[in-house]
Amino acid sequence: MQKRDMRVAVIQQANTADMNANQQKSEQLIRNAAADGAQLVLLQELHRGLYFCQTEDTTVFDQAETIPGPSTERFGALANELNIVLVTSLFEKRAAGLYHNTAVVLDSDGSIAGTYRKMHIPDDPGFYEKFYFTPGDARFNNGDSGFTPIQTSLGKLGVLVCWDQWYPEAARLMALAGAELLLYPTAIGWDRQDTNDEQQRQLNAWITIQRSHAVANGLPVLVANRTGFEGSPIAKDANDGIEFWGNSFIAGPQGEVLTQSDATGDGILITDIDMARTENVRRIWPYLRDRRIDGYEDLLKRYRD
Amino acid sequence: MQKRDMRVAVIQQANTADMNANQQKSEQLIRNAAADGAQLVLLQELHRGLYFCQTEDTTVFDQAETIPGPSTERFGALANELNIVLVTSLFEKRAAGLYHNTAVVLDSDGSIAGTYRKMHIPDDPGFYEKFYFTPGDARFNNGDSGFTPIQTSLGKLGVLVCWDQWYPEAARLMALAGAELLLYPTAIGWDRQDTNDEQQRQLNAWITIQRSHAVANGLPVLVANRTGFEGSPIAKDANDGIEFWGNSFIAGPQGEVLTQSDATGDGILITDIDMARTENVRRIWPYLRDRRIDGYEDLLKRYRD
Repeated sequence: MQKRDMRVAVIQQANTADMNANQQKSEQLIRNAAADGAQLVLLQELHRGLYFCQTEDTTVFDQAETIPGPSTERFGALANELNIVLVTSLFEKRAAGLYHNTAVVLDSDGSIAGTYRKMHIPDDPGFYEKFYFTPGDARFNNGDSGFTPIQTSLGKLGVLVCWDQWYPEAARLMALAGAELLLYPTAIGWDRQDTNDEQQRQLNAWITIQRSHAVANGLPVLVANRTGFEGSPIAKDANDGIEFWGNSFIAGPQGEVLTQSDATGDGILITDIDMARTENVRRIWPYLRDRRIDGYEDLLKRYRD
Repeated sequence: MQKRDMRVAVIQQANTADMNANQQKSEQLIRNAAADGAQLVLLQELHRGLYFCQTEDTTVFDQAETIPGPSTERFGALANELNIVLVTSLFEKRAAGLYHNTAVVLDSDGSIAGTYRKMHIPDDPGFYEKFYFTPGDARFNNGDSGFTPIQTSLGKLGVLVCWDQWYPEAARLMALAGAELLLYPTAIGWDRQDTNDEQQRQLNAWITIQRSHAVANGLPVLVANRTGFEGSPIAKDANDGIEFWGNSFIAGPQGEVLTQSDATGDGILITDIDMARTENVRRIWPYLRDRRIDGYEDLLKRYRD
């Protein structure tokens, strides 16, 4: 099996309330990654602004935009200029009162290669996403599944978003549809009230589950997470908020970590992935061969009670 | 949520062709674990003998036994004597020409609490399991799923076997049916021809995927693996065989490793698990709440092509 390298990059950044400054920072990091030869660049979840789900505020819907819209225009032009595939994450306005947390892939000719609307929506203290985001459609009007990889000039991308990363089902569905990479734009962090031990358990769980999607499916995984502390708009004290834990990483198809960020600081991860290794790894670890699809029907149940 | 500790033990051992000696070693280790207060003891896969699947040999079927049979009698008596729940692994003869790789759980009164027949059967060079083992029935004649946890006096055990450990579907099905622990009797090892880097990637993948089942389901995980080198019966040189990699471990419901063996040596892992933590962990990481069962139907397909 001949080596077939693709150079990929993941961008991790801290944001402020200045959306224009965030955007300029993203663009500069994308340009730097492309200058280093990256063919594919992944941005973090909702990279245009602060993570706005720490409270439920109807004025935030003003930040949503249509697809196509200003962001896809701007990022499409950049992808075209740099001749890269660019995976972005937007607050999508689909209709009045109907919004999604949507990843948009811009192909290297500037066109929209496809979109993925976050299927699993969290709702925890400080992460009030169910207020803002309608889950992606299970089936679109054209019959397509909500779990469909996006075909680009570089291959089929299994783009999922943040909370999806805890669901082996989502990664598997992408793999079964021919995804060649799994990509997770993310915004996750610590509560400063938690102990250091608890924080480490959470971080390690997050790394472990995403590496496991690589293992289970024999696919490389790219993860872009936000960094920096963002105070809660309804803070009672200065520690109320989210300490985004960074630790963006890229893993190979055995779950091996190829490169990883730390918890703080803007930066670019860049590495070459041998896209032919999936074929090699799956030949000797042929999990897809042995799935017991005759015994899986209860996966479609909420609970087996 | 009140703490509710259960003391659990995992036994790792090297075997020889002397089945009686293997059995005596297992029994001594079980007695030691019980003396240390273990309430639940997990043995490794096919702990009675050598891992016999390195070649395809019809005389090996002589080793198979019925359930109930000599092993369940002997281990049942031991479980009763020590007042423990004991998870064993047997080569089961179901009928002439029909054999399974079966875990049998003996309850603390010596009765058979239940059995689990390995659902996913591997077949790789040196692991010719498809020759010996019929996969567990997807549905039994009474309508039960092949993926059903076993009710014991200590709780519901999600017992799976070795190759099952690579399948998130299996762990999820057990969790959805109310399993309170996941248990993996295992026999996996290295090929000495592989590089050290490749060996480490395989070991880490194996640890990662099993920790991920803890994470995805908020359940503790117990893993018992064999250790020691077993030469291939059809060896062309002395290095042909399997270097079983041990590294048995016990993880908590965030995937955190509580205790772990190294690659060599017989031994007992023992630890207290707080069974109430699953409830606590799932309250703040409520993955079961948000599964997209309306979008998972393609998990029942071999491939989405």
